[in-house]
Amino acid sequence: MPDTAANSWEARAEAATFYGFTDLPSIHARGTVVLTHGEGPYIVDTHGRRYLDANSGLWNMVAGFDHAGLAAAAKAQYDRFPGYHAFFGRMSDQTVMLSEKLVEVSPFDRGRVFYTNSGSEANDTLAKMLWFLAGAEGAPERRKILTRVNSYHGVTAVSASMTGKPYNALFGLPLPGFVHLTCPHYWREGRPGETEGEFTARLAAELEEVIAREGAETIAGFFAEPVMGAGGVIPPSAGYFQAIQPILKRHGIPLVADEVICGFGRTGEVWGCETYGFVPDAIISSKALTAGYFPMGAVILGSDLADRLHAAAEAVEEFPHGFTASGHPVGCAIALKAIDVILNEGLLDNVRAMTPRFEAGMQRLAEHPHIGEWRGKGLMGALEAVADKATKTPFPSDLSVSERIANTCTDHGLICRPLGQSIVLCPPFILTEAQMDEMFDKLEAALTRVFAEIGAG
Amino acid sequence: MPDTAANSWEARAEAATFYGFTDLPSIHARGTVVLTHGEGPYIVDTHGRRYLDANSGLWNMVAGFDHAGLAAAAKAQYDRFPGYHAFFGRMSDQTVMLSEKLVEVSPFDRGRVFYTNSGSEANDTLAKMLWFLAGAEGAPERRKILTRVNSYHGVTAVSASMTGKPYNALFGLPLPGFVHLTCPHYWREGRPGETEGEFTARLAAELEEVIAREGAETIAGFFAEPVMGAGGVIPPSAGYFQAIQPILKRHGIPLVADEVICGFGRTGEVWGCETYGFVPDAIISSKALTAGYFPMGAVILGSDLADRLHAAAEAVEEFPHGFTASGHPVGCAIALKAIDVILNEGLLDNVRAMTPRFEAGMQRLAEHPHIGEWRGKGLMGALEAVADKATKTPFPSDLSVSERIANTCTDHGLICRPLGQSIVLCPPFILTEAQMDEMFDKLEAALTRVFAEIGAG
Repeated sequence: MPDTAANSWEARAEAATFYGFTDLPSIHARGTVVLTHGEGPYIVDTHGRRYLDANSGLWNMVAGFDHAGLAAAAKAQYDRFPGYHAFFGRMSDQTVMLSEKLVEVSPFDRGRVFYTNSGSEANDTLAKMLWFLAGAEGAPERRKILTRVNSYHGVTAVSASMTGKPYNALFGLPLPGFVHLTCPHYWREGRPGETEGEFTARLAAELEEVIAREGAETIAGFFAEPVMGAGGVIPPSAGYFQAIQPILKRHGIPLVADEVICGFGRTGEVWGCETYGFVPDAIISSKALTAGYFPMGAVILGSDLADRLHAAAEAVEEFPHGFTASGHPVGCAIALKAIDVILNEGLLDNVRAMTPRFEAGMQRLAEHPHIGEWRGKGLMGALEAVADKATKTPFPSDLSVSERIANTCTDHGLICRPLGQSIVLCPPFILTEAQMDEMFDKLEAALTRVFAEIGAG
Repeated sequence: MPDTAANSWEARAEAATFYGFTDLPSIHARGTVVLTHGEGPYIVDTHGRRYLDANSGLWNMVAGFDHAGLAAAAKAQYDRFPGYHAFFGRMSDQTVMLSEKLVEVSPFDRGRVFYTNSGSEANDTLAKMLWFLAGAEGAPERRKILTRVNSYHGVTAVSASMTGKPYNALFGLPLPGFVHLTCPHYWREGRPGETEGEFTARLAAELEEVIAREGAETIAGFFAEPVMGAGGVIPPSAGYFQAIQPILKRHGIPLVADEVICGFGRTGEVWGCETYGFVPDAIISSKALTAGYFPMGAVILGSDLADRLHAAAEAVEEFPHGFTASGHPVGCAIALKAIDVILNEGLLDNVRAMTPRFEAGMQRLAEHPHIGEWRGKGLMGALEAVADKATKTPFPSDLSVSERIANTCTDHGLICRPLGQSIVLCPPFILTEAQMDEMFDKLEAALTRVFAEIGAG
């Protein structure tokens, strides 16, 4: 039961907050968890309760919650130059250095960088860039955006329109012109008797059909997360990007990799597109870009889009778009350090080293009769609960199975995320073997307990 | 001439940047100004050149570029808890405290706060909130947004659609359903012989007509900056908000004050709506909220919208919207300090104390035969250049008068902003009398020089 005294943190939070992405019945029943500080991968609340955060905050705090090097980089920049913009041909030295670094670590031999404050803004910005380009290249009808069902690209009205989630209907979204293709989730979307290769071929054929139906000349771009994150950690079916990229190329449709979650190491390579062996036309980055220490998004344009967009901007003398804090010097200083920490101070190495143990732990839990599949890549994974493993039948939604599992975990000091009927794990890159064992042990106990409670043990 | 050596800061910036809101011919002619640090209201570039920034960065660095107290607040929080989100019923203690503080200093007796990373995201969020509310209240057709020509509300596709600027046509914006009313700028929009009172009454009548034409039942909200900022510092005509608010109320249309620029002291009161004597239904805040030290926006809902939205969210158990860095603990700690610095450490007092000197300086420059008017409120103002003062005829746009004035200022160590044919001034709140005199002296010298160059001396 929550502390309901008027001066409790719980009551204070509830009085002044308009909650987002929060189950309100749970708030009433359990109260807001108000956090004071963190220790490595653990967070601590106002009651002194300690939780292993297997969410990495929100996929982003990959270096944990008290990384001394990142804090030092932030603090040094606050002493040096604590804020500026990147408008009117002025920007900080940190901004220039980060742009160089992002192009250097990107899959592109050349490119240009545009900063935002979030992945939502970065996707929204790239949609606007593609519309700007369409107008400049004499094809103003080239405006439609293709994405996939279950994809997550953000919450601005346009990035929410890209997102393939049913809850956006509550806002009257998607806006017209956003087309959602089939989710490349073979286990759930594959037809009886269909091989994974046949499934991939069917999705490629669907893309051809959609392009034919909509008209290639009306399509501005195709946005895809290499592994879908908030859709429930869904890796693509085998050969998916190899099947769709030639189709997009043939029709002149840019392929954008939304690397907000995958980027900077989550899948075991710097980029998710590396893990899946393709080079996109542009990359959307955020989250691990600053290890969650600062709000930042970046659009990294590959050479073709960079050249065409630059020419389009030159023709009208200015690209009239930008955010006040785009390229903030503190954010850029932090990102420079975060990239260094991930690539050169052992975090990416640890992702690779810990992946076999992670896969083994997932595999073990997937043997439970009410876990339909485990899926994932690198240090991101999901376990999907099912009432019947053979038929993949979900539990009735009013049982709130995944929420019960997550709440049971929370009660025992583990934060994991319920998504649909799945439990998602995406621990910080600094996780030790002992911490990973703690994570799986607590989750296994919660699974056993909840399935027993609902009579599905 | 810019330094074009391959390893120069200018060349490095140009190689990797996709510039936003930047005149590209100026970059080619003058090079990017790459900044290393700041001193009070001054910024310093990689060549050691020092500029008095009469833009406050981008209206936001109101405490200057090296405020020790703000840096200390940021650094302390980086040592304590350097990042978290506000999803799933969890958030930092700083987040709770800032929400309480924002409601306390707002014009509302009760309210709820939702965090974003920018003013763009906050406007986009509130549009989505109003659409969500419309659906929940059984009026899904209530989606149109009313704003004014010359207004600026941001750059996401939806906040850009609210913005009343012609450049958005380059993106094929505004989206359908965004209606722009007449800019309440009496000097420019008033008809011959029309008094300011008659002008205001005409704009109120126009609002009635637009509501009748569009249908009140199709309109979700009316968004307005108390003083238009990026439109060229345009205070409303006398009695404007008193004339329009009753009309909106009668039709059940929420009035949203976009206080991104005006909020936290710029106009001499905490809020621009206080300066102009009205209480809106919600406030959009950003910029001075963190004194530019962190990317943050906030939607502050007054009691009526807070209650209705909360009920709408309860009905579906969750408001499915939020940004990863919404309510970031470092941003909230900085905002708590920034509000304290502005309200209790003399910054707002200094705005009030310096306003008469600012007005006198503007008045003096406005006597120039090619300055058509000066306008402003508190420490924000604009001087509009004209070829003919009596007829208010602008200079030919190919003369780029305001850009030439601003570039001449830059050459002499003063940053001010060309906007249309106006020069905008919005100095930091810490400005001293001597610094204000430096600002006006340098601007006056630039005006004299440029008008002489173009034969308009």
